[in-house]
Amino acid sequence: MNTFVKMLIPLALLALSFKAGAEVLPSWNDGPSRQAIIAFVEAVTEQEGKDYVPRAERIAVFDNDGTLWSEKPIYFQLYFAIDRVKAMADQHPEWQKEQPFKAVLENDREALSKSGEEGILKLVMASHAGNTTEEFAQIVQDWLAEARHPKYMRPYTELVFQPMLELLGYLRDNGFTTYIVSGGGIEFMRPWTEEVYGIPPEQVVGSSIKTEFQMRDGQPVLVRQPEMDFIDDKAGKPVGINKFIGRRPILAFGNSDGDLQMLQWTAAGEGPRLMGLVHHTDAEREYDYDRDSHVGRLDKALDEASERGWTVVDMKSEWKQVYPAR
Amino acid sequence: MNTFVKMLIPLALLALSFKAGAEVLPSWNDGPSRQAIIAFVEAVTEQEGKDYVPRAERIAVFDNDGTLWSEKPIYFQLYFAIDRVKAMADQHPEWQKEQPFKAVLENDREALSKSGEEGILKLVMASHAGNTTEEFAQIVQDWLAEARHPKYMRPYTELVFQPMLELLGYLRDNGFTTYIVSGGGIEFMRPWTEEVYGIPPEQVVGSSIKTEFQMRDGQPVLVRQPEMDFIDDKAGKPVGINKFIGRRPILAFGNSDGDLQMLQWTAAGEGPRLMGLVHHTDAEREYDYDRDSHVGRLDKALDEASERGWTVVDMKSEWKQVYPAR
Repeated sequence: MNTFVKMLIPLALLALSFKAGAEVLPSWNDGPSRQAIIAFVEAVTEQEGKDYVPRAERIAVFDNDGTLWSEKPIYFQLYFAIDRVKAMADQHPEWQKEQPFKAVLENDREALSKSGEEGILKLVMASHAGNTTEEFAQIVQDWLAEARHPKYMRPYTELVFQPMLELLGYLRDNGFTTYIVSGGGIEFMRPWTEEVYGIPPEQVVGSSIKTEFQMRDGQPVLVRQPEMDFIDDKAGKPVGINKFIGRRPILAFGNSDGDLQMLQWTAAGEGPRLMGLVHHTDAEREYDYDRDSHVGRLDKALDEASERGWTVVDMKSEWKQVYPAR
Repeated sequence: MNTFVKMLIPLALLALSFKAGAEVLPSWNDGPSRQAIIAFVEAVTEQEGKDYVPRAERIAVFDNDGTLWSEKPIYFQLYFAIDRVKAMADQHPEWQKEQPFKAVLENDREALSKSGEEGILKLVMASHAGNTTEEFAQIVQDWLAEARHPKYMRPYTELVFQPMLELLGYLRDNGFTTYIVSGGGIEFMRPWTEEVYGIPPEQVVGSSIKTEFQMRDGQPVLVRQPEMDFIDDKAGKPVGINKFIGRRPILAFGNSDGDLQMLQWTAAGEGPRLMGLVHHTDAEREYDYDRDSHVGRLDKALDEASERGWTVVDMKSEWKQVYPAR
């Protein structure tokens, strides 16, 4: 190598590192959350450092509703269930008289709300079961292509948080495997998480109904049954992590009390950890809610985060941008 | 680059390709199974070919008992259950009079056999539940370090099939992700599959009992409950594949009728597929059994393999070596 080339190398490296530096988490203000994330990632990837974690053990888990995408005014999957019930109503004349279907068909929000968890469960079963797994994936994709959020009038898959997309990518660039661990339906998420989040189906953990293997015209199919299989929420989240991943995460991000046990489970492992909460503080660009919210209540987890020094992302002050540019 | 170096490159590539060729599946005789496997892998990895499959979709699933390791005279996990019951007997004086525990403690094989599936389930619950997930993983590892197979007097983890280890490695070298999909216990397998098969915990699918999130002295633990959660066998295998992986495999290997639905599910996808069965035909080096065997019965799946041209590995004639060298 000649001397001139040798002289250029440090310059090139410098340019590269500036470029890399400038690219990390660009939609995050340089506040405490961004600093904590970068310090954590640098610590666990520094091969000579005391906090080094081998690549295979760099497991990061993310709640979905309210953490990776919005969850207001109601969970997006509930809009899916409502639209699906409306689309199926012709085949179910009995729904005209039966709650919570009647409420859905009459757009009676109050009656729907009164039907409570039991009503929601009925809606979910009616709208999510009966199809083969492949038919259902297609139904979800068709719905996402057409449906629009009532406030933003954008497709739901555009109402994902740009700073969190950057965080997912930054972690993967640093050898992490990024998982979704959501109370939402596993088969509601899998058809689109790879395209939207870069998270493939086998890295999505969620709630599920049972499926049954059947032969139809000599072809095997899996048919979705109107029976709960697993609820991946609250104390179910560490159970789901253990079941599907079989390793304890070193980083976990949520936004509500439904994520508390997942954060506790993550925190209880040995070695460096990062536990994070997205705090919805931005009524202007998104929504502003925590302790008193029906959807995505953040109360006990906020107290515990404060006591234990977990990372709480103040959406309003720490995020330059909430959603991806149109 | 100077001319001499340029001349060397094709030579070096040639040497590399010879080296690679010599290394592929060395414990397999060049019979129909080895040829079918290599032809399949070359077809799906040939980027310009009509059968090309992108890396992320190269999902290969393997049964464990009888496919990756031996399963005779009884499933190895049953030896674990028996040894565990013996080790726990002091704390359970009632077992002296209660079947199937009495049979285990008195080494009464006939009475144990008579207790049937219900008896086995009782043994499994008593021996597999009650601990935290971390305690259980340690118990399994401790047992494997001490236990020896009654015929070979070797650790069970040495009674894995050398040709199948080579197949797993060959597939991974060609961009496949290799999963276990076993009727055996998921948490019985995960503590050792990475070291033995190169298959990490998140790529192990199996049967499970329920776990419960609890706080012990302020520390979260997952406690194993004496209640079945999921049976990953027969029609449960495609259900497990869909639940844990969320993609349809393009290659599946089993050895018994318990794997038939997994093979059917794999075969029913579009594009190139490979379905394989290990046929235990070698009474001298391993065991010789199929249609009439209680453990690992291979009957319907053998007929279907023959009708549909699936790959049936004749252990006796196609494997140069069965177990790894000591």
